[in-house]
Amino acid sequence: MRHLDARLAAQGHEVVPLDIRTVPAEALLGADFRHPAIVEAAELFAHADGVVVATPVYKASYSGVLKALLDLLPQYALTGKTVLPLATGGSTAHVLAIDYALRPVLNSMGAAHIVQGWFTLDKDITTHDDGSVTVAPEAAEALTRVVDQFSAALGGVPLLAAAG
Amino acid sequence: MRHLDARLAAQGHEVVPLDIRTVPAEALLGADFRHPAIVEAAELFAHADGVVVATPVYKASYSGVLKALLDLLPQYALTGKTVLPLATGGSTAHVLAIDYALRPVLNSMGAAHIVQGWFTLDKDITTHDDGSVTVAPEAAEALTRVVDQFSAALGGVPLLAAAG
Amino acid sequence: MRHLDARLAAQGHEVVPLDIRTVPAEALLGADFRHPAIVEAAELFAHADGVVVATPVYKASYSGVLKALLDLLPQYALTGKTVLPLATGGSTAHVLAIDYALRPVLNSMGAAHIVQGWFTLDKDITTHDDGSVTVAPEAAEALTRVVDQFSAALGGVPLLAAAG
Amino acid sequence: MRHLDARLAAQGHEVVPLDIRTVPAEALLGADFRHPAIVEAAELFAHADGVVVATPVYKASYSGVLKALLDLLPQYALTGKTVLPLATGGSTAHVLAIDYALRPVLNSMGAAHIVQGWFTLDKDITTHDDGSVTVAPEAAEALTRVVDQFSAALGGVPLLAAAG
Repeated sequence: MRHLDARLAAQGHEVVPLDIRTVPAEALLGADFRHPAIVEAAELFAHADGVVVATPVYKASYSGVLKALLDLLPQYALTGKTVLPLATGGSTAHVLAIDYALRPVLNSMGAAHIVQGWFTLDKDITTHDDGSVTVAPEAAEALTRVVDQFSAALGGVPLLAAAG
Repeated sequence: MRHLDARLAAQGHEVVPLDIRTVPAEALLGADFRHPAIVEAAELFAHADGVVVATPVYKASYSGVLKALLDLLPQYALTGKTVLPLATGGSTAHVLAIDYALRPVLNSMGAAHIVQGWFTLDKDITTHDDGSVTVAPEAAEALTRVVDQFSAALGGVPLLAAAG
Repeated sequence: MRHLDARLAAQGHEVVPLDIRTVPAEALLGADFRHPAIVEAAELFAHADGVVVATPVYKASYSGVLKALLDLLPQYALTGKTVLPLATGGSTAHVLAIDYALRPVLNSMGAAHIVQGWFTLDKDITTHDDGSVTVAPEAAEALTRVVDQFSAALGGVPLLAAAG
Repeated sequence: MRHLDARLAAQGHEVVPLDIRTVPAEALLGADFRHPAIVEAAELFAHADGVVVATPVYKASYSGVLKALLDLLPQYALTGKTVLPLATGGSTAHVLAIDYALRPVLNSMGAAHIVQGWFTLDKDITTHDDGSVTVAPEAAEALTRVVDQFSAALGGVPLLAAAG
């Protein structure tokens, strides 16, 4: 979801990406809260005003890898924070996984405001050879809308207004 | 939950334990379906008639580590199988995590029959120095009840009947 | 879902339909457990071995009217029973409402076995002028499959075998 | 939950109570969107900036009567609104019903911000002969906290500040 970062940055937010796949597996699964990679992730969350949580939908829910990271953060790591939940999946039949599976977890972590999220079909996302990502027009428009709502909830200046 | 195995074995079931903590972390998180440990876990599920799924409750849901394993199994790895969901947690406030979080995942995997599960408080489970586990009497009685229902659903001979 | 009744009856089950719309509104909403219509519904559940629960999906969940009836039944009105959950909706985006919303309620009522349910799109169901109902072929086939699984779980003789 | 109204009113909010039990049963269950009582409820929602949704927990979820009312409102009746979910129940085992059952429904109605809710045990609420209600001190303190967060999210002046 790196292309969302550009839009948020353009709205004045500092965006720090955290790719869970770069967290060492033994840190995620070792239940070692003092592992440097976990400490670093926890500090990143602690300093953030807003958090974008993105996951594929597997087996009607968020990925185990995402949950493994959340499990290692403090119980109330999202206290006072604004959260944007995003999911991708192979079928619209999985749309409700955001609201029924992911949000309750984010709520249990004390999130102050979980804005309306968005579900994108896998087929609407194309990753090119150079690593860049293209989103199909209709999905891109919807993503832009939820990102701008997230930005506004954070107190950022919406891009359209800034451009005005 | 190893002490449940004895009861199931006494009822004529062959029980093969799978401790997720023994699955290599890089296999669980590497999304490599061909890793020998994942292939072995998938075959274990494929041959089983019944599956006991046990998890601690973290952040109002099952553990990420459990979900990481389930994510690597085939979409319908539970087709035709009877499943007993078990959870442990620090507070009765998490009881509903079995029905609202874990069961939908097990259902999406095609489970034929998910029997009534059970939630045990952490404080009711004592692990001794020699690795053996004791469960507080009331919790043990409830666990015995759901294990016997699971056994009956599997077609096993209930222990009490066998003892008769 | 009256056309399912015929299939279940042909498999040897006695089917007693309960159309919630025929339960007086003041009985459903009056929280009067002794209202004759509620007493009758409770007795119907008490005597049944299996229960088909069908609901439209509104607002990402089961209908309030269905829940109002369930609220008036005893806490464990489904103890020992086999349940088939069915839902209809305008979009496949609501499919997960069966597993995330309806099943936890049925579980809390003590259901022994909730078989795999089915979600049918509104557009696949046609109600004719004479009150008869037609289901689009693909949806009808899926419905037949879950009904037969339900029948088998109840111990009934599957229709195909009976026809053999 | 009428005693919350006083606190919200003291913070400068106009509070319009809507007791679902006063909505005629045949309006709630008749699926008649044009019934005057339903039109009135829909207009009340349409004009509100914030909505307090309170329900008892029955069968591991919100009440059917509450859902029957929500079912008769427009699909996006909560668009742009701030919502405070409250629940009461007989046991802390039902706490998660707010996050797993009620919030997904409110989200599907377009709610802009569902603040952290609160679950109160039935035994902590006492209704006196004159109709007044007393809440046990600890529960009252927690309720005050979520009401003030709700008020702040609405843009109201928190009571303590107003009293300063």
